[in-house]
Amino acid sequence: MLLFSNLKLNDTEPIYIQIKNHISDMINKGLIPNNSKLPSTRELSQIFNVSRNSVILAYEELKSEGVIYSISGKGTFANSQNTILNNAWSINWDNLENDYSKIANKMDIVKSEIPWKSDLISFKSISPNGELFDMEELKKSFLNRISLEGHKILNYGYAKGYRPLINYLLGYMNTKGVDTSNKDILITNGFTEGLDILLSSFVEKGDYIICENPTHNTAIKIFKALGLNIISVNINKDGLDFKMLKNKLNNFNNKKDTKIKFAYITPSYHNPTGVVMSPENRYEFYNLMKKNNIAIIEDGFNEELLYSSSHIFPICSLDNLSNGVIYIGSFSKILFPGMRIGWVFGDKSIISKLESVKRCKNIHVSFLDQGILYDYLSNGGFEKYVKKIRKFYGDKFNFAYECVKKYIPTEYILGDGGLHIFLKLKNIDSRILLSKCYEKGVIFMPGDIFYIDGRGYDTLRLGFSRLSFEDIEKGIKIIGDTIPDLVQ
Amino acid sequence: MLLFSNLKLNDTEPIYIQIKNHISDMINKGLIPNNSKLPSTRELSQIFNVSRNSVILAYEELKSEGVIYSISGKGTFANSQNTILNNAWSINWDNLENDYSKIANKMDIVKSEIPWKSDLISFKSISPNGELFDMEELKKSFLNRISLEGHKILNYGYAKGYRPLINYLLGYMNTKGVDTSNKDILITNGFTEGLDILLSSFVEKGDYIICENPTHNTAIKIFKALGLNIISVNINKDGLDFKMLKNKLNNFNNKKDTKIKFAYITPSYHNPTGVVMSPENRYEFYNLMKKNNIAIIEDGFNEELLYSSSHIFPICSLDNLSNGVIYIGSFSKILFPGMRIGWVFGDKSIISKLESVKRCKNIHVSFLDQGILYDYLSNGGFEKYVKKIRKFYGDKFNFAYECVKKYIPTEYILGDGGLHIFLKLKNIDSRILLSKCYEKGVIFMPGDIFYIDGRGYDTLRLGFSRLSFEDIEKGIKIIGDTIPDLVQ
Repeated sequence: MLLFSNLKLNDTEPIYIQIKNHISDMINKGLIPNNSKLPSTRELSQIFNVSRNSVILAYEELKSEGVIYSISGKGTFANSQNTILNNAWSINWDNLENDYSKIANKMDIVKSEIPWKSDLISFKSISPNGELFDMEELKKSFLNRISLEGHKILNYGYAKGYRPLINYLLGYMNTKGVDTSNKDILITNGFTEGLDILLSSFVEKGDYIICENPTHNTAIKIFKALGLNIISVNINKDGLDFKMLKNKLNNFNNKKDTKIKFAYITPSYHNPTGVVMSPENRYEFYNLMKKNNIAIIEDGFNEELLYSSSHIFPICSLDNLSNGVIYIGSFSKILFPGMRIGWVFGDKSIISKLESVKRCKNIHVSFLDQGILYDYLSNGGFEKYVKKIRKFYGDKFNFAYECVKKYIPTEYILGDGGLHIFLKLKNIDSRILLSKCYEKGVIFMPGDIFYIDGRGYDTLRLGFSRLSFEDIEKGIKIIGDTIPDLVQ
Repeated sequence: MLLFSNLKLNDTEPIYIQIKNHISDMINKGLIPNNSKLPSTRELSQIFNVSRNSVILAYEELKSEGVIYSISGKGTFANSQNTILNNAWSINWDNLENDYSKIANKMDIVKSEIPWKSDLISFKSISPNGELFDMEELKKSFLNRISLEGHKILNYGYAKGYRPLINYLLGYMNTKGVDTSNKDILITNGFTEGLDILLSSFVEKGDYIICENPTHNTAIKIFKALGLNIISVNINKDGLDFKMLKNKLNNFNNKKDTKIKFAYITPSYHNPTGVVMSPENRYEFYNLMKKNNIAIIEDGFNEELLYSSSHIFPICSLDNLSNGVIYIGSFSKILFPGMRIGWVFGDKSIISKLESVKRCKNIHVSFLDQGILYDYLSNGGFEKYVKKIRKFYGDKFNFAYECVKKYIPTEYILGDGGLHIFLKLKNIDSRILLSKCYEKGVIFMPGDIFYIDGRGYDTLRLGFSRLSFEDIEKGIKIIGDTIPDLVQ
């Protein structure tokens, strides 16, 4: 009752008037919030040390003025609705918003999504099928980790990450043929944060970055929000267009007195095209960037789905004892995306810088989640899981690919596996196709969102990870059947 | 074995030479990573479809050249150490680093910490005592949430946050006397991310911000890293210096053609001083900012430790139906900091913008953690916990305060409760004091890190949350006993 105690009664005015004015003043100032409950007349008479009648009289006056109201059986409440409205403080936040936020908002595709309907067959998502998650293993890992070091992982941790998880991931990178002796790892909230923290630490507005076109649309959004100039290189049915890349490098080097800081590349099951870059092309790309001294950001996207028997190493395996490649990995593309755990792997001196930036942005990733994931991984849960999903998604990919060939007339189909297929249609606007298909209960991702230069109007991405074989065929057939309506 | 299959044998050279050159080339290029295992001679002879003898000969030559090596019983491995070293690519990352990263690194106090010794009595931390966490309730919440909607919270969620948790927190804000009708909530990775995302969305380099001096040193770091100009207002034993604030506002308004965008304030158990701002000062501060149209960022820091019976409302409760205050709350200062869950509460239009920025930075906060926390909160676990810790920390605060009065000669002691006490010594350099106390096994937080203008050399913060009564007294006595050595 702190707020009521500072009333000093005088001898000149009637007591009930002084009480009335005091309460009225506090309500109008907002010190007693609107609709909040006032003390009872009995309580208030004790607080002010006055007769209860004075308080009753004050409350009656306040009610007649509309400053308070009573609800029978519940009590008396403040009413400052009108005062508040008359005194509202209105800042124009649109004027305060900076370019970063404007671009992040404008390019937020979630905000312009088609409304969800029940029974939609959705090829939009490329998130993993939750039914494959092993809940019992996860529960075991949680209970195990909590009983072993619950107090530790529930309290503050270190910005770089949970040490056992970092060590596990260093070993994991090692199994990919990567020398980890001069390297370190920062744990991040998924791939997206890894990319954001890396770029936030090393780029300035107006810097240049190379990337594939089309590419991961969140990456495009981050590049543009940070004010980067994008040098895009086509990726098509023969993979990355090296001739175009070399031409652009030559033109740039001849004309600009600035330099290109980064090249961003997704060598495995590239999003959206699904193409896997060959070892020879990885080698050529690495050496081209090395020659031009352009650091490579390698997106480890869905690399885990590569058959373990294949000898396709990540590009960072070419960078042993060097510091030209930063690899960003994430399990959350295929396992427990809701946990948001990824990692940045790079030279120790880079990771040390990023560690402080991470601490400056949000201290660290949930140690609870890191602990659970570590326990799950180190108990062999991940290997078992990956074996299972390779088969599961591999079968789905093959089936979906056959369905596309059978039902949809395309200029070409791209995809070497993973969780999606990319189609180039024959001069059909995929957004018009989408709106027609939506009416028939089928949606997919229009391809233009993955292009840097506004192209791709006749492309689309089909994600099939969460659909049954039946729905895959049904949905693809509907898309194919809808196309003839659009041919002029 | 993909990489070996592209060898085309010719008729002019001996086969073993061709094999030797091919493998040597691949190892030197890094296509076969250093120390990775080669196929056995038998396997390779099958891959190349040549006699095993040719492969044996090739391997012998490669061994003599040091390009490969054998470990008996384990196999043959690539050795490209020298080649790699000679061809190392070395980017100068220090040159690439931008100002943001430089400041975040320079101001990262964790990196310049005194090395930990066993048996230290540490007053440095103000993180909660993990022994008070109710592990059984937490386990129940985890198992409950996983069985109810495990597939959902382990897969991708929404940038704004987990809907049930948002609704719970809106209700929680309501119990603080806050009208939530035009407000919304963004869930963030703790307070720090809330502040970072808010500022990243609305400030430009060179903008002005008002804050208390001293204040939360992570906030200072974020302000400086983002290139903000700080207008600091002293907080001392009488609370915020309103005269100084008004003078600075007047001077600024008269001279600058730009404006001050934000004022950052921590009204409850202010870090580091521990001062709780009175309702009258909250009212005055709010109206002063409103008059000057400067948006308020209210740090809800440790507000949960205020006695529930007190009528001290957050500043945002004065902002009903207005949009001038953004409140950043966090349970993680007192409960499960390892989970990193906080929230930004503000006008719907602001939260909508921040939602897209959050999506651009790291998609969303762990839905697993949000689900667990929601379950824990909605089952009444938090109320029980808060009741328990108010008593626990309240007793410790009173005891520590008495010990300071008894043992340490100070100019003044600040603190109204919470998890720490702030001391101004009598012209004693607290960093020298710290190094002397460290030798005797006691450490604390020197106060200068909380000051914007390099002052505070003779101040320090004592956090006692994780110490026993015995260690509190012992540690404070040691600090007090060390002071006479430093008096000149």
